Amino acid sequence: MTDQRKTLPASYYTNREIYHAELENLFCRMWICAGRSERIANPGDYFLCEVAGESLIVTCDGDTIRAFYNVCRHRGTQLCVEAEGHFGGPIRCPYHGWSYGLDGRLVGAPHMDERAFRREQYPLHAVQAEEWDGYVFVNLAPASQPLAVQLSALPGKFAPWGMRDLRIYKRIGYEVKANWKLIVLNYNECLHCPLLHPALNRITDYLSGTNDPPEGNYIGGSMELRDGAQTMSVDGQLRRDYLPGLDQDQRRRVFYYAVYPNLLLSLHPDYVMAHMLWPQAVDRTRVVCEWYFHPHEMAKADFVADDAVEFWDRTNQEDWAISELAQKGISSRAYVPGPYSPREGLPSAFDQWILGRERRTDTLSPVPADLTHGEG
Amino acid sequence: MTDQRKTLPASYYTNREIYHAELENLFCRMWICAGRSERIANPGDYFLCEVAGESLIVTCDGDTIRAFYNVCRHRGTQLCVEAEGHFGGPIRCPYHGWSYGLDGRLVGAPHMDERAFRREQYPLHAVQAEEWDGYVFVNLAPASQPLAVQLSALPGKFAPWGMRDLRIYKRIGYEVKANWKLIVLNYNECLHCPLLHPALNRITDYLSGTNDPPEGNYIGGSMELRDGAQTMSVDGQLRRDYLPGLDQDQRRRVFYYAVYPNLLLSLHPDYVMAHMLWPQAVDRTRVVCEWYFHPHEMAKADFVADDAVEFWDRTNQEDWAISELAQKGISSRAYVPGPYSPREGLPSAFDQWILGRERRTDTLSPVPADLTHGEG
Amino acid sequence: MTDQRKTLPASYYTNREIYHAELENLFCRMWICAGRSERIANPGDYFLCEVAGESLIVTCDGDTIRAFYNVCRHRGTQLCVEAEGHFGGPIRCPYHGWSYGLDGRLVGAPHMDERAFRREQYPLHAVQAEEWDGYVFVNLAPASQPLAVQLSALPGKFAPWGMRDLRIYKRIGYEVKANWKLIVLNYNECLHCPLLHPALNRITDYLSGTNDPPEGNYIGGSMELRDGAQTMSVDGQLRRDYLPGLDQDQRRRVFYYAVYPNLLLSLHPDYVMAHMLWPQAVDRTRVVCEWYFHPHEMAKADFVADDAVEFWDRTNQEDWAISELAQKGISSRAYVPGPYSPREGLPSAFDQWILGRERRTDTLSPVPADLTHGEG
Repeated sequence: MTDQRKTLPASYYTNREIYHAELENLFCRMWICAGRSERIANPGDYFLCEVAGESLIVTCDGDTIRAFYNVCRHRGTQLCVEAEGHFGGPIRCPYHGWSYGLDGRLVGAPHMDERAFRREQYPLHAVQAEEWDGYVFVNLAPASQPLAVQLSALPGKFAPWGMRDLRIYKRIGYEVKANWKLIVLNYNECLHCPLLHPALNRITDYLSGTNDPPEGNYIGGSMELRDGAQTMSVDGQLRRDYLPGLDQDQRRRVFYYAVYPNLLLSLHPDYVMAHMLWPQAVDRTRVVCEWYFHPHEMAKADFVADDAVEFWDRTNQEDWAISELAQKGISSRAYVPGPYSPREGLPSAFDQWILGRERRTDTLSPVPADLTHGEG
Repeated sequence: MTDQRKTLPASYYTNREIYHAELENLFCRMWICAGRSERIANPGDYFLCEVAGESLIVTCDGDTIRAFYNVCRHRGTQLCVEAEGHFGGPIRCPYHGWSYGLDGRLVGAPHMDERAFRREQYPLHAVQAEEWDGYVFVNLAPASQPLAVQLSALPGKFAPWGMRDLRIYKRIGYEVKANWKLIVLNYNECLHCPLLHPALNRITDYLSGTNDPPEGNYIGGSMELRDGAQTMSVDGQLRRDYLPGLDQDQRRRVFYYAVYPNLLLSLHPDYVMAHMLWPQAVDRTRVVCEWYFHPHEMAKADFVADDAVEFWDRTNQEDWAISELAQKGISSRAYVPGPYSPREGLPSAFDQWILGRERRTDTLSPVPADLTHGEG
Repeated sequence: MTDQRKTLPASYYTNREIYHAELENLFCRMWICAGRSERIANPGDYFLCEVAGESLIVTCDGDTIRAFYNVCRHRGTQLCVEAEGHFGGPIRCPYHGWSYGLDGRLVGAPHMDERAFRREQYPLHAVQAEEWDGYVFVNLAPASQPLAVQLSALPGKFAPWGMRDLRIYKRIGYEVKANWKLIVLNYNECLHCPLLHPALNRITDYLSGTNDPPEGNYIGGSMELRDGAQTMSVDGQLRRDYLPGLDQDQRRRVFYYAVYPNLLLSLHPDYVMAHMLWPQAVDRTRVVCEWYFHPHEMAKADFVADDAVEFWDRTNQEDWAISELAQKGISSRAYVPGPYSPREGLPSAFDQWILGRERRTDTLSPVPADLTHGEG
């Protein structure tokens, strides 16, 4: 008799302590996708992101991507408020005017007693930042493996889509009343597609495709387009050229990958979509969905893309609604772990990764509650 | 010198642990009025109710009333969203399509590996359900006394009103920022009527009537209609025939009973009103008020009933406002239990019931946090 | 090398236990400014205020200012709802009609059994109340030093402004998402004025003026009006006579005093402004700002005052916005105490007072959770 995997206990979706442990062990120690590097193409450009409740400034210092906690070293004031913008000069605190270079060094501190005060002791608190194929990743842990180690085989696997060259066409933010893991689980199986997504189900066959054997820090696989369908859009028709690097097989499939912990990548023949997950509470997640297209296409006079955006926006909303029902049901005292079918291998693999990661981080030293680096 | 009863300590109205203990000891172990059986007159009809935060499906399976936790046995998704409706076939989960008969048995589970999976191990989690005189009661405790034991003398006492034959004319829901017990206390004395309900006070004499000696799981009594008044309505005039089973004395009185813990029954000469209390938090209660009339009257071309609805809707709102002020004042550090007057015997009896019930359930084994019945 | 003071640890602005300890040790044991006595000029006038979550009735009983917990001694109901009003007779509970004289004595208790019940055992719970120069102060501690001891030198210092004679022109309430102490810190330095308040900075020189040596329960100092400026208003011009008691020096300065813990007094040549701080949560404060003018001026046909109100309303909003950014930044794990400049002596002194007060009250007996005075 086959050993049957079951869903996780309710506490993984309802217990605040487990949630906060996940923030610490996953979101504060792994590389987190912060957003596209095209948003900070020029020196001084910046955008804000919020990891585990921490507001971060992601900016471009010459050729270097940098990230800082959004906290002045004087009296702790948040430095930036706007979601994105441009620093024309130093980063200046709006309260008493302490100023920082784009490299984080304190360059101005009005009225401080220069006999007792040394500027070099008060740089912005830095956060690690790296780029992969057009995406900025940040890591709150002071010392961690390089991003490449976390991504392992992914860069080679996704190279044909040339994601670095693509550009944002649309961004939509969603507030979902469900634990972030329920959104990952939902993303990683299409057994629910016939019932929940009739439009999607007309374009791809939920029984088609193959999944990669789960390994490392991602899971995923592909599904085949049905005969007559060319891409995921409201009618399945292709309105843009194929992305330039794809072979015949890649042109007939859609690839879905969950890059742990917060990036869901959907690779289509003619565009790429990304979901970034931002946990807000044990039962609430902010999801930012972006659609990327090739600039050659976007430059065309007859460029259209809303067929792809509308298709996925509707699908997204169907997925959020069912994830919210899952959150509600799992919160019941009647919930007990239920059995996965053989076609739910990826959700089960994600559960196992969560359990394994939990065990592994037990042995790590805790992230310090108060940072002390750069302190004199 | 008479021994003077005092109100309960503040913690009974402000402490979350006591509140949750009440949910467990009262709402999860007693029979709770879920609503009228006329709402599920036909097989497949259903309505949802929420007991102690648990969403329940109440449905009609042939001649049998059944209740289930609203939780799929696959991945825990809530099965139903609409407050009421009809199952045309099996109860199907909107996520991956697991399907259940109206008796709760799992009848479909797509893509499960039938070698390892046995459907009979995954029925819906059932909840006890019984009917009394047109009302459905549910009980979350797996083993409990029959409903008749909890109701004791009530069925005989209320038989003349023929509640089973009546039909819902109107339902109004209220959100009250007060502990549920303050609403029960408010319901059980009319000493406040001259000041708070001048309209009501013109129809019944708050010093008239008699109370039953408190016993078992209810308290109540009656008040006499004043000369010239015929029923509780905006002007005290009767616009409908008397309910058929009432004698002369019953036609001249209004009967008020609190059927512990969540049903308040108000029996008038020509109609019946019920309040169902649904605690939401230690300081917040949802109250659903329904008005029932005789179908013979409702079939008449000149049937009117808003005189009764408006009268009680206004009175309800006066009662909720004062209950909210009681909640606020009792939450003050200055609050200390105050003395009941001899005319507040029923509120005091309710307090004593709460204290007695608390003691009794100390010796009961706790309700399991996770249900395990039906688990293979 | 100068010893450098630093800001307080984050917990003083984010930890709920410290917040509640501050409510107990400061707001429940010190004299708190409740509002202007002109609001209860006539016997029976009253207004409500809320200290540490406790609703209080402040009223005028003949020549005596009295304050009571807003809680009926019968069943704990709040007696008053309106923010201010007038008792035409006794204070009557809207629930069952218990009535109290303006001195708090119970004068009516319908239907109580007079053999067992003694009215003198159930007066309203009284709170200490005193007046200083037009302001009512209350003190929840049953036994405390007189108000004059807490104020020490302030009454003499502020006598020239004749605050008792002034009258309220305008009241504006603000909800600020910041700890109450951040608002006190912000009030006590003008180093932020050039950047944050350009309009204010044109009228006074932030490097001018002197501060009192910090002592006792207040801090403060003055700033000089720039040449050409006559008062704090939208254009710096004087539209009202000087307050009658001021000398030449006082006419050329603005005086800012934080009267611990909840009153900020701003004394101008021609008017007085007060901020009263009402902590609502560790990260939320209600601020009530009032502007007072001389009645001789207010009686003039061409009296205007919106130049002063608009000026400060704008400045207030700038201060609340930056205080909210401080709250956010300090809540980050990256926050560590930062260094004060020599020009931030008053904020540092306030921090030291907080720390000192904390130590002192460690040795005091706790305020009783339930009051028992007046209990038979």
